Amino acid sequence: MGMDMTGTVDDANGGLGGGPDAAVTGRCDVLSRIIGPDDVKALSHSELHELCGEIRSTLIAYGHAHGGHIGSNLGMVEATVALHRVFDSPYDRIVFDVSHQSYVHKMLTGRAQAYLNPSRFDEVTGFTNPDESVHDQFVLGHTGTSISLACGLAKTRDMRAAANHDDAGIGNVIAVIGDGSLSSGIAFEGLNNAAEQGGNLIIVFNDNEMSIAGDFGGMYGPLARLRESNGTAQPNIFNAFGLDYRYVADGNDVDALVNAFEEVKGIDHPVVVHIHTLKGAGLESGDDGSREVAHATDTGANETSNLAHVEPWHSDHCNLSDHEPHEGQCEASHWQTPDKAIGRPDDPRKHYGKLAMAALERRFPTEPGLVVISPATPGSNGITHEFRERAGAHYVDTGITEAHAVTFAAGIAKAGGTPVVATTASFFQRAYDQFFQEMSLNRSRMTVLDFLGGLSGSDNTHSGAYDVTMFANIPGVTMLVPTSTRDYLADLAWATMPADTTGAEGAPEGPVVIRVPGQAILERERALGHAVTPEEVLRGESATAEAGDAAQMLRYRIDHQGADVAIIALGNTYPLAEAVVNALAHADTPIDATLIDPRQCTSLDTVTMESLRADHRLVITLEDGQLEGGWGEKVTAYYANHRAPQSEPARDPRTPRVLNFGADKEFTDRVPLADLNERYGLTVGSIIARIREALTGRS
Amino acid sequence: MGMDMTGTVDDANGGLGGGPDAAVTGRCDVLSRIIGPDDVKALSHSELHELCGEIRSTLIAYGHAHGGHIGSNLGMVEATVALHRVFDSPYDRIVFDVSHQSYVHKMLTGRAQAYLNPSRFDEVTGFTNPDESVHDQFVLGHTGTSISLACGLAKTRDMRAAANHDDAGIGNVIAVIGDGSLSSGIAFEGLNNAAEQGGNLIIVFNDNEMSIAGDFGGMYGPLARLRESNGTAQPNIFNAFGLDYRYVADGNDVDALVNAFEEVKGIDHPVVVHIHTLKGAGLESGDDGSREVAHATDTGANETSNLAHVEPWHSDHCNLSDHEPHEGQCEASHWQTPDKAIGRPDDPRKHYGKLAMAALERRFPTEPGLVVISPATPGSNGITHEFRERAGAHYVDTGITEAHAVTFAAGIAKAGGTPVVATTASFFQRAYDQFFQEMSLNRSRMTVLDFLGGLSGSDNTHSGAYDVTMFANIPGVTMLVPTSTRDYLADLAWATMPADTTGAEGAPEGPVVIRVPGQAILERERALGHAVTPEEVLRGESATAEAGDAAQMLRYRIDHQGADVAIIALGNTYPLAEAVVNALAHADTPIDATLIDPRQCTSLDTVTMESLRADHRLVITLEDGQLEGGWGEKVTAYYANHRAPQSEPARDPRTPRVLNFGADKEFTDRVPLADLNERYGLTVGSIIARIREALTGRS
Repeated sequence: MGMDMTGTVDDANGGLGGGPDAAVTGRCDVLSRIIGPDDVKALSHSELHELCGEIRSTLIAYGHAHGGHIGSNLGMVEATVALHRVFDSPYDRIVFDVSHQSYVHKMLTGRAQAYLNPSRFDEVTGFTNPDESVHDQFVLGHTGTSISLACGLAKTRDMRAAANHDDAGIGNVIAVIGDGSLSSGIAFEGLNNAAEQGGNLIIVFNDNEMSIAGDFGGMYGPLARLRESNGTAQPNIFNAFGLDYRYVADGNDVDALVNAFEEVKGIDHPVVVHIHTLKGAGLESGDDGSREVAHATDTGANETSNLAHVEPWHSDHCNLSDHEPHEGQCEASHWQTPDKAIGRPDDPRKHYGKLAMAALERRFPTEPGLVVISPATPGSNGITHEFRERAGAHYVDTGITEAHAVTFAAGIAKAGGTPVVATTASFFQRAYDQFFQEMSLNRSRMTVLDFLGGLSGSDNTHSGAYDVTMFANIPGVTMLVPTSTRDYLADLAWATMPADTTGAEGAPEGPVVIRVPGQAILERERALGHAVTPEEVLRGESATAEAGDAAQMLRYRIDHQGADVAIIALGNTYPLAEAVVNALAHADTPIDATLIDPRQCTSLDTVTMESLRADHRLVITLEDGQLEGGWGEKVTAYYANHRAPQSEPARDPRTPRVLNFGADKEFTDRVPLADLNERYGLTVGSIIARIREALTGRS
Repeated sequence: MGMDMTGTVDDANGGLGGGPDAAVTGRCDVLSRIIGPDDVKALSHSELHELCGEIRSTLIAYGHAHGGHIGSNLGMVEATVALHRVFDSPYDRIVFDVSHQSYVHKMLTGRAQAYLNPSRFDEVTGFTNPDESVHDQFVLGHTGTSISLACGLAKTRDMRAAANHDDAGIGNVIAVIGDGSLSSGIAFEGLNNAAEQGGNLIIVFNDNEMSIAGDFGGMYGPLARLRESNGTAQPNIFNAFGLDYRYVADGNDVDALVNAFEEVKGIDHPVVVHIHTLKGAGLESGDDGSREVAHATDTGANETSNLAHVEPWHSDHCNLSDHEPHEGQCEASHWQTPDKAIGRPDDPRKHYGKLAMAALERRFPTEPGLVVISPATPGSNGITHEFRERAGAHYVDTGITEAHAVTFAAGIAKAGGTPVVATTASFFQRAYDQFFQEMSLNRSRMTVLDFLGGLSGSDNTHSGAYDVTMFANIPGVTMLVPTSTRDYLADLAWATMPADTTGAEGAPEGPVVIRVPGQAILERERALGHAVTPEEVLRGESATAEAGDAAQMLRYRIDHQGADVAIIALGNTYPLAEAVVNALAHADTPIDATLIDPRQCTSLDTVTMESLRADHRLVITLEDGQLEGGWGEKVTAYYANHRAPQSEPARDPRTPRVLNFGADKEFTDRVPLADLNERYGLTVGSIIARIREALTGRS
């Protein structure tokens, strides 16, 4: 699936982009006057060019202050202006794929101030959103779906026109796709269906050469030849899907684009308008020149780029600013870090991702079958450029193709290799069926590194709150949820035990998902001085626990033995549980609560659970994901369905009451994590209050 | 996702193909001698041709007696023989996409008797299976994954060879794809990655013109021109993905195939071998000529076939035998019904599918936005050929593209149309991310018809036991689980209320999934004389309930008010619950149990649940799907977390104990439904025993 744009750091924190001092730009006389598409149409030819310039300078200033998908939007300035010059949104419907390239569209549809005025930056999201504007068709954040959506819009338009015996005046439907999205399987399904459907449908393919996931994939060569031939060479992949085709060599020439769009406006059949744009157009390589930026055009594993004219950071993959100029910053994050984030330490994804890569890299020389697979966006997960260079064939970027990546890993496993597939939790949803079929049903010995699982302040298209619900209910999957670096590396070592150990005592019998620790755990480790560096791991200096055997890996760990109340805290909630136990111990009416780290969420350690019966009245489960279908309900259901037989006199027949803490079944959009924890009662105060109520029977 | 091949009827029933009288064929002197691929290599040229003939006659006889994917296997006879003549399985690894075309492969790898001898028919599954043979690489039943799997096999081979500094003697990797699979998105992801990866990889594209989901999609035209030009025309879609390409015009000429495979054996880069085969080759149109077979080449919505030379039933889509010769039999099922099944009444998928289509068809004249979408395999779900002809533009077959189909529907909904997407539960797993994003997050007013949900005797790749776990845990989804025709049609009417009613009182606020009733419900309705015909529904003669308002649709229904024990039975378990209530009422120590139909599984009717506190000690949940992450655990967790406050003196503080009945978290392969029910305690005896135990405290 998807573009990796979990919301900007700012968004997640609910903050603004640096206050008034970060004020964006000079005068934007034309842009400031644009209230809607009609204003774009009313501009003179010279004003149209001025508008493009103003938008570009606004985007750059905005990027520095706020972060965002600046590179891809810079490439789309002229195309978006031309779209609104020619077409009549919302009567004509424009669907932006992933919708991360919609900033210019937003500026032209009444929301320019949200980019011009720092105090209003948070008035818009990073994606299209029908709640913001009638010009936004959908909320989208995963790749490749725009063509299918456009087919649906067009289908209904045409059926209504047929019913009305009137096809005059029906609107155009336009899908804008590119910048990596075309490697997603659903985009091809859409292409194949578009021609079959017929009728007006305009697919604008934004080919910024970064497309196809960073020059990735076999179609890159033919696409390059298509560009070189001014759109005339064969094989033409769009023709191969039965589609009409136009080519615009300079996709940053607003006049050429206006002409091209006018030609296809009102067309009676599907057509692809292939526009060759320059990602990051308008950025000078010296812009904000104090920062060295390397490898800007490398967004994949294979450095076959021939984009000599591309300036160093014409890529979303390339942060406008990054505190680690030599390491992976160029695609380190699809959301560009704003200036004020410089110097911050790694977020948990990058931190723990780097540790995992270091642990694996140590083994590359002796394990030819060990392969790290990233369906795009490696940098966000700490899979740095330098790592990838050193890894060579041990690293594969498959493009934005989660389904392929997971299936590819199953193939590697079958051949006896050791695959590790890494991406963000919400993107893994694209491989749900492959997790069932090729991975689990086939007992593939593979490892899934699940990043950004659990609650976060992410936008609503990238939330990781559903990962346990997804993975833990697939038969045959083991999902480990480590709460420390030590466990995390031990889990990784166990999951990636070479295939020739399969069946040997202790090795996993099938696939293992490891949920990468989140912010709460990283903060705890930093506070305790437990955080290690990737360099230490790479040099073997950190005390990385050895992998245990299977029985050991799946056992709950009683970290503190108390009585009456047991708190079983999954993953990122473990530090919260510690705090609750501490607070209970030091309360006026102290309770010596038991603290348990379950370490995994796919099987119940019934031995430990049974041991609680004798002297625990209450079991608390904590998880930082959705309660419904999640882990805590499994604990509740176990005790509900398994009561100690009264016929065993040696045992107390008591069944502890279970209380579950976790997230509601809902979508949340850029709600700060602290607010979510408050909302769901995942706070020390709330948990203790419910414990007290339950013990006194007043609940 | 997928081919629709849930296992043969026989498999599901554990029966055999008609006993010795169904003995298959004449003498198969050559085939009987084939123990493994070496024996194929040892044959003389004339014996090779004899072998093909014997296999063909064996397949036909087997199809009559047992059912199966006969058409597609008939097309692959020579190609499979040639593969084993040229390549050295298992050293060379052959991956059969979907693996429904692997019968011939099985015959040639030690399993011929499982096709020759009716008493041994059940010794093999309908798909490849590593537990059966080292020549089978994977268990596969969903489409399009073979190229990705092959990439993984090849990757590990090449990394090992590099580590050993030895690339001599490394095996070939061959993916065999076609017969509809190429329209799946993951197949394109695989194609795009194959060329990028490089190294030996041979993709055999079985183009039987039925491929591409029945001539479906924009790529059909270019593929036809490719065939007409003997593989020389552009655009060549495989070239467009950067792949080398060979064409074999007669893919049923074993000598030509042997030559073509010998040419590519040991090749150092990925290549596509496009073989043009005849699906069902060897079937005479008069074979078993007493049955009329119509429309055999129509497998999609669009009747653009130009396959004049294709004989009437050269398609898996076309049953060898069907009791309804005029209605949809040609792609009614991907598993061909054996002779002995003739005259059986419709299975529940077809029965309830036909009712839904009839109810929708009545509205087509007045609702131009009402569209039924089937990602292939419509016939299995009662979406008959005749319906499709009448539906015209109101019906769309998207090819085997669940992700596109669901997204397409979201587009239709956005434009104000009324989309209904219908396919089999396990195939919908392919659209998991789209259900989250395009469907639910966007509050798309669309309906999902979920066929074969719940337990069945299906094979392990097509089980519907996980559908509630999938749908019910997605925020914003409403999943209805009707237990009667009346409810089913009312649910459909409510879910498909036109979009202009959105926001109006009573209309759904977002997407609705309807689980199509299964065998237990159909049997109950037939026994009660409640089953109606599609014709009655179409004519408006059946008493179809009107859609209620939202509050009403989501309310639990107390069908019998008793005391002490309440049984809440979801969907297909409702008849079982009735039987339990009856048995309890007439027991020696009678219990007047309450019987509740929850009607949906996505929200809890807490009013009804609270009402049980006063006089029920025990609540039983029944569901015919996976317990973990399923529906019953939600009920359990509700009572565990919500106890009646003791401070309310008017209320009994009792919280009923909850017992959950449902399926384990496991894969099952062709286990008869009755056996599964026994295994999971979903029987009257087992449920009553647990109720008695719980009431007496002896559990």
